[in-house]
Amino acid sequence: MAEFRKDPVTSGWVIVAPERAQRPKPSKLTETISEPGRCPFCSGNEDDTPPEVFAYRAPGTPPNQPGWSVRVVPNRYPALNSLNDVSQQSSSFYEAMAAHGVHEVIVESPAHVENLSTLDEVQFTRIISAYHQRMAKLSSDARWRSLLLIKNQGIAAGGSLLHVHSQLIAMPMIPPQLESEVDGAKAYYDFRGGCVYCAMIVEEISSSTRVVSVDSDYLAFCPYASRVPYETWILPRRHAACFESTAPADAVRLAPRLRETLRRIDQALDSPLFNYVIHSGPPHQGETPFYHWHIEILPRLIQIGGFEWGSGSYINTVRPEDAALLLREVAL
Amino acid sequence: MAEFRKDPVTSGWVIVAPERAQRPKPSKLTETISEPGRCPFCSGNEDDTPPEVFAYRAPGTPPNQPGWSVRVVPNRYPALNSLNDVSQQSSSFYEAMAAHGVHEVIVESPAHVENLSTLDEVQFTRIISAYHQRMAKLSSDARWRSLLLIKNQGIAAGGSLLHVHSQLIAMPMIPPQLESEVDGAKAYYDFRGGCVYCAMIVEEISSSTRVVSVDSDYLAFCPYASRVPYETWILPRRHAACFESTAPADAVRLAPRLRETLRRIDQALDSPLFNYVIHSGPPHQGETPFYHWHIEILPRLIQIGGFEWGSGSYINTVRPEDAALLLREVAL
Repeated sequence: MAEFRKDPVTSGWVIVAPERAQRPKPSKLTETISEPGRCPFCSGNEDDTPPEVFAYRAPGTPPNQPGWSVRVVPNRYPALNSLNDVSQQSSSFYEAMAAHGVHEVIVESPAHVENLSTLDEVQFTRIISAYHQRMAKLSSDARWRSLLLIKNQGIAAGGSLLHVHSQLIAMPMIPPQLESEVDGAKAYYDFRGGCVYCAMIVEEISSSTRVVSVDSDYLAFCPYASRVPYETWILPRRHAACFESTAPADAVRLAPRLRETLRRIDQALDSPLFNYVIHSGPPHQGETPFYHWHIEILPRLIQIGGFEWGSGSYINTVRPEDAALLLREVAL
Repeated sequence: MAEFRKDPVTSGWVIVAPERAQRPKPSKLTETISEPGRCPFCSGNEDDTPPEVFAYRAPGTPPNQPGWSVRVVPNRYPALNSLNDVSQQSSSFYEAMAAHGVHEVIVESPAHVENLSTLDEVQFTRIISAYHQRMAKLSSDARWRSLLLIKNQGIAAGGSLLHVHSQLIAMPMIPPQLESEVDGAKAYYDFRGGCVYCAMIVEEISSSTRVVSVDSDYLAFCPYASRVPYETWILPRRHAACFESTAPADAVRLAPRLRETLRRIDQALDSPLFNYVIHSGPPHQGETPFYHWHIEILPRLIQIGGFEWGSGSYINTVRPEDAALLLREVAL
């Protein structure tokens, strides 16, 4: 049974989830994965996953049968438990609690595609809409204080299956990274009276050196303090704290900007592995004036080493201004 | 010129160091490195590195010639600058400062050895003594408020050369991870009147389920909230905040414990890539009663993915109790 365990010094926590070790996974960092004989995410193999909780389907097709274009299923190897069982591993010195939450998989194509950027704009729109609808659904459950939408493209980027998919995780607490962003944004707001992300948008469009692309709704740019080479963020230009409470028509306008950005990264960097994460405000805090949802895209060109583990900081060998220039110059 | 850049939301910072991109390094995560024609760290090739700042040598052998057993040189591709130049990348919104500091390499064998755990105990003692002397030397410079001793064994663990070596980085500020540990330890001390790490040692030896090995001076164990499978820490049993201010005779008694622990990890996990980091208290704070230096060893069996990037937390599929049992049972 998975549990949250708290570090007694830093109060950081981990999810200890031994059941997840059963999923298909290389045992060493340098090994490549052997895909299972048949891909559980391909159309026709719907029986290989738990029953779907959502799908875009052709009219008249029944659930858990072919006919879908995007399909959402519970994770077969969840990092979190659906039940709030009591943990056995606490002591007077150490603290643990049952790791309850929701862990879903969004399968992003019925065909066996491995590179998200090759999908067309119609499919990107369905994908973004599926993210939006599932996050809205989970945000209505008062137990979940954070929603994390993550994409791992490639085994060495943390993926365990190559068929394009993302994961949605709902947790009963705010994780350290989101807490740090919310606290920092709140402190800026209290001192300056505005949203720090809105100020960032003005600064980036004004200086333009780190802009990758921009339209009337969304800005894609390489952040000033990029942690890794070619890190790229996409922010909605209109202030909104939570992705899932954005109007559906505004949310799906993210699709062309995300697709174009991923295509630029794919072409400029020779189809790198990457992660992206939707950073959305804690649902129970609602539409605050200080937090601003966004997507962070992290190409995985370099390895995290002892410096990053030991310091909690990063060494980036590519100036974000140089990264943005290269990404802007890609001919699509 | 390298610079520290501050994230305007979280106040986290990165070192942007474009010069470091010149070092030998794979351009993609999945590529393997091609070692240079001759290894700059092998005995006989001393001219391929900057002049040494420290060495254990056979009596009568001159500097920068063969005859050494451990050799310390400035990093040829430093992440930090020796001079405190003024940065050009700040603005009214963003903050930067010149990334000045020291970046040294400790070459841990004159022969081309790639697996540290194969070295004998005499050599481990020299290595630990070299760490200790260089850290003591740098701690006497009041500009450096943190010292980071890091080991990256293997390319995919962040190494850029395979010949056994570690890196020592001195910085003018306290990095986020150390700050979090110092703050947490201080809070525990203020509330409980004792060192949290000393309490942890008592708890671990008492419960014994996570102990890997122990002697009268040092304890090796898998921490309760292990972030990665087989994470192992080594703590001195006697309280001391800073590694470099430990008496030399106490410091070198770490050598047999570290060697045995690395041999257990090497045998149990089939010579995994790994990182280790010496976490030592900020030199200018001196011997506080609340911080407690230690080594954290992180085998690199799994990939960090979107969950870790997005949440700042970790999913660990191996219970530390199971990890410690396996490591204890290795027959050396």
